[in-house]
Amino acid sequence: MQQPDSLQYIGVRDDIAARITAGEFKPGERLPSERQLQIGGGVARGTVREALFQLEAEGIIYRKDRSGWYVSPPPVVYDPTRWEGFMSYVEAQGRRPETETLSKVEIACDGVLAQIFSRPVGAPMYWIHRRRSIDGRAVLIESIIVDAARAPGLIEHDLNGSLTSVLKSVYGIGVARNKVDMRPCALTRGEAEALRVKSGLPGLSLVRTCYDAQGNVVEFDREYWRHDALTVSVDIRVR
Amino acid sequence: MQQPDSLQYIGVRDDIAARITAGEFKPGERLPSERQLQIGGGVARGTVREALFQLEAEGIIYRKDRSGWYVSPPPVVYDPTRWEGFMSYVEAQGRRPETETLSKVEIACDGVLAQIFSRPVGAPMYWIHRRRSIDGRAVLIESIIVDAARAPGLIEHDLNGSLTSVLKSVYGIGVARNKVDMRPCALTRGEAEALRVKSGLPGLSLVRTCYDAQGNVVEFDREYWRHDALTVSVDIRVR
Repeated sequence: MQQPDSLQYIGVRDDIAARITAGEFKPGERLPSERQLQIGGGVARGTVREALFQLEAEGIIYRKDRSGWYVSPPPVVYDPTRWEGFMSYVEAQGRRPETETLSKVEIACDGVLAQIFSRPVGAPMYWIHRRRSIDGRAVLIESIIVDAARAPGLIEHDLNGSLTSVLKSVYGIGVARNKVDMRPCALTRGEAEALRVKSGLPGLSLVRTCYDAQGNVVEFDREYWRHDALTVSVDIRVR
Repeated sequence: MQQPDSLQYIGVRDDIAARITAGEFKPGERLPSERQLQIGGGVARGTVREALFQLEAEGIIYRKDRSGWYVSPPPVVYDPTRWEGFMSYVEAQGRRPETETLSKVEIACDGVLAQIFSRPVGAPMYWIHRRRSIDGRAVLIESIIVDAARAPGLIEHDLNGSLTSVLKSVYGIGVARNKVDMRPCALTRGEAEALRVKSGLPGLSLVRTCYDAQGNVVEFDREYWRHDALTVSVDIRVR
């Protein structure tokens, strides 16, 4: 019996998902072409595409530039109640973290930042724009603001690693409080472009505010993550 | 100077966003029609639509059935390190929580649940399907599994409130550990339909496993949230 078109793609989706689960296509591996996936199934090319879009939405497969569809690697686990930074928790999970500084410049503090940092409008701030990857795949894009008065010359340093480490070792600034706000979002415009994903793909927006022991804001960080790259995990017990 | 079409929608987006920020359109209020938004701007209807889709992706506006576009209400804040349930933290934020049981049935434990609950395949389990709303807007859909042997007759009770309270007051089952895993996702198929959103809209998938003091799984809950309904917030200090 022929299923209605609107449901047929679910059958194709389930079939491809089952082949991934069974290990026929492995994490990081390229899927056969849409044409090859079509053969034997007796389904329209459009139906195969719909099934692939569904699997992408679920984070099971992803697109790489123009070279086709790949099986998503397993997500890394991020626990916002722990102090470990990206470079450290990604490596601890047997994966290869990488940080690429896209730009680092001095800017003038605007009204929004003035409130966050309790600094006057116009005060010098550093704006650091970075892309981070896991096993060679770009997973997040971030904009970090640091008060230039607290860390003069910060942007002269190599920032392709842990910024927290540089702030600690060079400037003696330690973080005593970490406030993390996360919201699911759609990756659009600049973020989508920098992560090389189709605009509109789901993502996670993460805003981190780091304070020192005196309650001053040390670092204000806005991150945009690909949706298939991380699981946020919190494990709480009664004390 | 005429901007290229691919960028013109960003100007329209910024204009509508500014009018929302300025309070011309308030949270929960209906936006003027696409036609009305178009007039004066001298832009194509398609450009206005593109701008509206962008604002929807950002969680700033949302669609209600066929009645048009509305300004999103502010998200509720959910802190996974705290013990409070939905009914309680939503109300504490001055909002009106509501829980609607869509179905509650006894099912046979399958292989996956057998592992989670350490129970034999085929053992009776309760499967509870609920929709939760804030101020009358559906924000999450959830599937909860409870071991029927631990809470016999659970589904005879009114479950349109806090399930944790029923488990505690009727069965004396307390939760001692809460493991929460969150992933950004796309809302598709059944979830999208139950939340009355367009398939493919970003969402948050949340899996909660609750254990008693002996380490037994009490409740296994899979939730799908609309992306504009919540902010996950964690605030950690050095001890």
